[in-house]
Amino acid sequence: MPLNSRHEVTVEWGDCDPAGIVYYPSYFRWCDQATYRLFLAAGLRRDDVSSGQWKEGTPLVAAECSFRRASQHGEKLVIDSHVSKFGGSSFTIRHVFRDAAGVIAAEGTETRIWAEKRGDARSLKSIAIPDEVKRRLGG
Amino acid sequence: MPLNSRHEVTVEWGDCDPAGIVYYPSYFRWCDQATYRLFLAAGLRRDDVSSGQWKEGTPLVAAECSFRRASQHGEKLVIDSHVSKFGGSSFTIRHVFRDAAGVIAAEGTETRIWAEKRGDARSLKSIAIPDEVKRRLGG
Amino acid sequence: MPLNSRHEVTVEWGDCDPAGIVYYPSYFRWCDQATYRLFLAAGLRRDDVSSGQWKEGTPLVAAECSFRRASQHGEKLVIDSHVSKFGGSSFTIRHVFRDAAGVIAAEGTETRIWAEKRGDARSLKSIAIPDEVKRRLGG
Amino acid sequence: MPLNSRHEVTVEWGDCDPAGIVYYPSYFRWCDQATYRLFLAAGLRRDDVSSGQWKEGTPLVAAECSFRRASQHGEKLVIDSHVSKFGGSSFTIRHVFRDAAGVIAAEGTETRIWAEKRGDARSLKSIAIPDEVKRRLGG
Repeated sequence: MPLNSRHEVTVEWGDCDPAGIVYYPSYFRWCDQATYRLFLAAGLRRDDVSSGQWKEGTPLVAAECSFRRASQHGEKLVIDSHVSKFGGSSFTIRHVFRDAAGVIAAEGTETRIWAEKRGDARSLKSIAIPDEVKRRLGG
Repeated sequence: MPLNSRHEVTVEWGDCDPAGIVYYPSYFRWCDQATYRLFLAAGLRRDDVSSGQWKEGTPLVAAECSFRRASQHGEKLVIDSHVSKFGGSSFTIRHVFRDAAGVIAAEGTETRIWAEKRGDARSLKSIAIPDEVKRRLGG
Repeated sequence: MPLNSRHEVTVEWGDCDPAGIVYYPSYFRWCDQATYRLFLAAGLRRDDVSSGQWKEGTPLVAAECSFRRASQHGEKLVIDSHVSKFGGSSFTIRHVFRDAAGVIAAEGTETRIWAEKRGDARSLKSIAIPDEVKRRLGG
Repeated sequence: MPLNSRHEVTVEWGDCDPAGIVYYPSYFRWCDQATYRLFLAAGLRRDDVSSGQWKEGTPLVAAECSFRRASQHGEKLVIDSHVSKFGGSSFTIRHVFRDAAGVIAAEGTETRIWAEKRGDARSLKSIAIPDEVKRRLGG
């Protein structure tokens, strides 16, 4: 059973656009925040920067989201997240957003790789996902 | 032949994250900006707000993007955009990002609906895409 | 005595920049969120958009912030906010950010006006702050 | 005479809020972008990350902006920027935003320090501004 974590966000004024609804890149920011909470719930610290340098982490290779109903400023959305698939160095996190009535507002996935970087952006390369990560996230 | 438009962006400091590469929701902001340019190139003014109120426009129903190579602060990316599919009230815009060497950095699609909104977010509903929009965008 | 409200934020991955510290416009997003919480605490609903159109609210005329110490991803910051000054149509909100050790991380002010807008951005004009707003916020 | 640089931005859909005007933290993002252009114009590369690690750069100690008139989606704003003051390790950049009619839309300053960081955010400390930086920026 994969580990599930739940993250609540408030739709902030600055998350919305002149149509008065969520500006869609905001959903991806929330997905990223939800993945961070999932790692915390697993006792993992993703993308450690305490050394002052990012050397290893989980950059994206793909992301997609379907927007089922528009949300607006002041609403609260609950995001449920879990790893839906593990590969050798890539894994997919599924996120489901529900509004206060429990209706699905959006749902999407992030596909990430375990990666290290020793120099500039070109030096980024995938590495094997640590076994403990798979074990803790329920892969 | 669908109309193509090209939009260049600079990867700004604030578009990147502590890994020193583009924070992935930034790509979706750029997709949205590129769609705006595509509409301008077609002589269309999407999402008019000159009345002080948004009444009609092109909200998203889905978006996805694949990230082929990491980009970093100071790079310039060129985005080519065109409508790849028209439905009755929905349409899909395809975006391809290339770096200075012409290599694909990312590629994705936005699926939007033509919609109107008369009250709050719940009142949003799809309407038929105007014929002139299809004609000008090459549908 | 002015009403005080407290708002806690987590420094998210996407709030930081390649230096590994908070990208400074993020502090202003948090100030805006904190002002929204202050209004909620006062039983006020700022910038109502439930009609589908923003007609009255509290746009900024000035903002400033001093950054005392750098914060990084995963830190929690507590923001204390209150109205420090009321004019006829303008008012100033003071925000103090403290880190987990209680040390001031940042402090700043927003000066806002009570305003209405009937058409495009040019039609925005200040109006008198409602008496009840002053009373509830402790002006 | 300090070096001046000019940077034009388009007010994007996602830079605005449900009031249909610029969401104010966007102005600070543009100030940061304008400072980057000022450094480029001076032949300086601020905040180098080509090694994969940020070690030296120009974090903020204060920022302030006055918003003179509201701008909306699709407008173009021109930002003129120059260093208005040099200290030993701090310096102030002044930014003036003008709309298409040449009217001042906003004006503000960023106060930055020259700083290095060897470990986490707590290790950030100011150092003397290199003489060549002062010379090239016209201090």
